[in-house]
Amino acid sequence: MKKKVTVLVMLAVAIGAAVSAWAQMKPEDAIKYRQSAMFLVGQNFGPLAAMAQGKMPYDKDAAIMYADIVAFVSRLPLRGFQPGTDTGGNTKAKPEIWENMDDFKAKLEKMQQETAKLAEVAQSGDFNALKTQVGETGKACKACHDKYRNK
Amino acid sequence: MKKKVTVLVMLAVAIGAAVSAWAQMKPEDAIKYRQSAMFLVGQNFGPLAAMAQGKMPYDKDAAIMYADIVAFVSRLPLRGFQPGTDTGGNTKAKPEIWENMDDFKAKLEKMQQETAKLAEVAQSGDFNALKTQVGETGKACKACHDKYRNK
Repeated sequence: MKKKVTVLVMLAVAIGAAVSAWAQMKPEDAIKYRQSAMFLVGQNFGPLAAMAQGKMPYDKDAAIMYADIVAFVSRLPLRGFQPGTDTGGNTKAKPEIWENMDDFKAKLEKMQQETAKLAEVAQSGDFNALKTQVGETGKACKACHDKYRNK
Repeated sequence: MKKKVTVLVMLAVAIGAAVSAWAQMKPEDAIKYRQSAMFLVGQNFGPLAAMAQGKMPYDKDAAIMYADIVAFVSRLPLRGFQPGTDTGGNTKAKPEIWENMDDFKAKLEKMQQETAKLAEVAQSGDFNALKTQVGETGKACKACHDKYRNK
């Protein structure tokens, strides 16, 4: 099953690398795109956090499923942060994102690395390792939200 | 690269099989979940359709990327069609979905099979085969939308 995770990471890297090739979206669609992807990530990370906190019984198969989805979908939001989408819709994105795009991308990539590791750890079935990695992933989410997302 | 597609399909089957284990969402979140997933599918299928119709230059790497995302994310909407979400939010889902859940699932699965094949065909780099498969995928989307989605 190690192979599966490796492939997921390969896929993810491919998705990241090809960003310059993305078709442009209408600004309102780009905002909806990144919000949709973030929402899916959140709804799949939530049960993992609940398991880690003992609020939901640990279920290895379910944890793998949620973590695989988080790992894959966490590659998608970047496409939505295209130029010219710092305002519009109900975006909470701060304009600082486009002023510090390299730093923003670095923070996103850090988060993607943590979610890839989350998928790997979920596969292992080691609940303590999963708890730790849920924490690390949450920190990576928060670091970016604190700096680049309005409350 | 054949292996990559096989793994994507394995992942997808795993996601489908485990649906009974999904954590319940608040009804408004479930509606938003399926809509978010469908939106991401649409935004990645769009460029493939544009390539197939000659409205965008064919780019093999980009086509692979879009098709991989379509194949993966097309597994996600089902979770959002949980009981009690036939009304609420701005859902266009018809109540017939919950009256004919087996037929609805069969149509969703048909679409998922077509998107998995789409990812496989995109890998091959055969543009004519891609055009055909974009058409087959579009038909599978439409069959379900026509029957189960309000205009």
